[in-house]
Amino acid sequence: MPVSAPRLADIAPFHVMELLARAKELEAEGRDIIHMEVGEPDFPTPAPILAAARNFLEDGKVFYTPALGLPELREAISRFYRERYGVEVPARRIAITAGASGALTLALACLAAPGSEWLLTDPGYPCNRHFVRAFEGVPVNIPVGPASNFQPTLGDLERYWTPQTRGALFASPANPTGTMLSAAELAAMADFMRQRNGQLIIDEIYHGLTYEGDAPTALAAGDDIFVVQSFSKYFQMTGWRLGLLVIPEAFVRDVEKLAQNLFISASTPAQHAALAAFHPETIALLESRRSEFKARRDYLAPALEAIGFRITARPQGAFYLYADCSALTDDSFTFARRVLEESGVAITPGIDFGQHLAASHVRFAYTNSRERLAEGVARIRQLIG
Amino acid sequence: MPVSAPRLADIAPFHVMELLARAKELEAEGRDIIHMEVGEPDFPTPAPILAAARNFLEDGKVFYTPALGLPELREAISRFYRERYGVEVPARRIAITAGASGALTLALACLAAPGSEWLLTDPGYPCNRHFVRAFEGVPVNIPVGPASNFQPTLGDLERYWTPQTRGALFASPANPTGTMLSAAELAAMADFMRQRNGQLIIDEIYHGLTYEGDAPTALAAGDDIFVVQSFSKYFQMTGWRLGLLVIPEAFVRDVEKLAQNLFISASTPAQHAALAAFHPETIALLESRRSEFKARRDYLAPALEAIGFRITARPQGAFYLYADCSALTDDSFTFARRVLEESGVAITPGIDFGQHLAASHVRFAYTNSRERLAEGVARIRQLIG
Repeated sequence: MPVSAPRLADIAPFHVMELLARAKELEAEGRDIIHMEVGEPDFPTPAPILAAARNFLEDGKVFYTPALGLPELREAISRFYRERYGVEVPARRIAITAGASGALTLALACLAAPGSEWLLTDPGYPCNRHFVRAFEGVPVNIPVGPASNFQPTLGDLERYWTPQTRGALFASPANPTGTMLSAAELAAMADFMRQRNGQLIIDEIYHGLTYEGDAPTALAAGDDIFVVQSFSKYFQMTGWRLGLLVIPEAFVRDVEKLAQNLFISASTPAQHAALAAFHPETIALLESRRSEFKARRDYLAPALEAIGFRITARPQGAFYLYADCSALTDDSFTFARRVLEESGVAITPGIDFGQHLAASHVRFAYTNSRERLAEGVARIRQLIG
Repeated sequence: MPVSAPRLADIAPFHVMELLARAKELEAEGRDIIHMEVGEPDFPTPAPILAAARNFLEDGKVFYTPALGLPELREAISRFYRERYGVEVPARRIAITAGASGALTLALACLAAPGSEWLLTDPGYPCNRHFVRAFEGVPVNIPVGPASNFQPTLGDLERYWTPQTRGALFASPANPTGTMLSAAELAAMADFMRQRNGQLIIDEIYHGLTYEGDAPTALAAGDDIFVVQSFSKYFQMTGWRLGLLVIPEAFVRDVEKLAQNLFISASTPAQHAALAAFHPETIALLESRRSEFKARRDYLAPALEAIGFRITARPQGAFYLYADCSALTDDSFTFARRVLEESGVAITPGIDFGQHLAASHVRFAYTNSRERLAEGVARIRQLIG
């Protein structure tokens, strides 16, 4: 019998998906499940984006776009970077992709030579190490914890850098912790990479969902950095599968070749819909939703602390709280299963984000109404009584 | 400066895309260009599919689906296989993907171990060898020509098989030739693979667009074959980016892990739209368009032969004619450029599909009205006088 390639042994299932499947099973049995595991906004697609899509679909001309995306969308994103961040990102350096997933595919297919080492954080977005591994790179996890706000330090970079290291992929705000890198930290990392001929890749998909001012973009630290972005989170277009990759000039041609061959192009209806993402009316709606996310965070963090969890890092963005549950359990995986089965509350065990501190942490996503979050907290309080 | 991974040196641009870009430049200058290079149907998305999408978009709940796709769509595809082909393909073996591109990513990420050899045809779909190369497999081209109807024979498989070979990826109907493998040929290949522990992958994305009866599916030759399918061609949903992969049972879990990590899920609006693809009303429309494609083929093949091209293989499907232009030029690449620049007719040079016979062939796509095809032929006749 033919067998899978060796890489498959190193590619873990995305556990939150399995947990979601179990939650849906329970719902099918009639249980009321409170979802605090889902990594996507609970809001519908903003009305102007929907209207743009429905309008585009009227004549049915849904053909391929150029491989790097609709020129007018790339221009709109370039303007957005200029207006929101004050950075110049020419449209020719912007690739429109099938979600941030597509952007990560292009970046790693372009950069990860077999055997090359790539620095990541543990905990971190679970798929990142699999993108590296899929293209035969070697993911190297830097354990990060509360002492560094769950972000890597320059000292970490020095410690984990080897002659095989080719770069790093970090996120700000990060999943599962919501912590950020400052502009100064990003600039220092970019300098570090330049000195070692390394390539910095920064995942900025939670930009816009920050609650104490805007997140600084790595693009301000130089035009030699890959930035992964998405329409899924701030623009709340998860199911549309639309993202983007900002590419250093020297790699544009190679990324375009890869996009032509591996994707042909991103979803055309999604691209036309996204043209409405930057309208003032859309932004006003998104900003009101951002306020709601902030209110949820400001409710949930103390509520969890009141029942025995500890929030040890400052969750400045995204829609997650990474909660230390060591006062309640020494096995977060079993704990999360128990919370789901007995309380009907779905949360994500730390194991989904790596090994480091995994057994003592669970992730709460506040992608649910404040009422439901409160009900979830009440149920867990009752369980752990 | 960081550099791209070595694989990029082996990944060629998709030339037809560049030619398309040049054609659009000429159009922007006011030239009338006849497009006979485009690998996508010229028809709009069928109305029932559009209506399903617009209906789905009404409430804006465009969230992720399960990684392998909407259960009801997987079931609909399973029924389609039963009804149209008489083969049983349980829904659990069907993965919904972002186009056939997504299906090829999943198949090769799952199967291609570094250094493993994969048999392909030359000429063939240009991206296939790049999917193999992207995951560090080694694409091995089997030169095929008119003698074998541009398809590989068992003798070819024996000749090119080495201890490093792990399988083969062939297409029926094929691009750029439109030629097919018979049920007997597919069964013999499947047997050959079983004897050598190899994995057969068959690209069936042009199924439904065949003009002398339906194409046999490789799935009838066993449940141990990967089949790549797409909603782009017969269902005419190119820009929606929706395809599927039929997976042998033993690989379902690994493909699901890859789908979770590399894609999260395929486009949700596209999946809901595709639920209408199997309605009798949609199928009736698609069958009338299939008749139109047949009429175009039946016009174009003799028209090209009348002005000096030769169609040396039997183009039973897809919407391409692979035309021998050796009576007109000994350099099809320069010829195609000249036809574009001087006659305003865009065709694809053989080089896009490999090396074998490339200089003596060009591909004509009949994805344009019969009137425009005739005008294109008239212009080329005038050019080559």
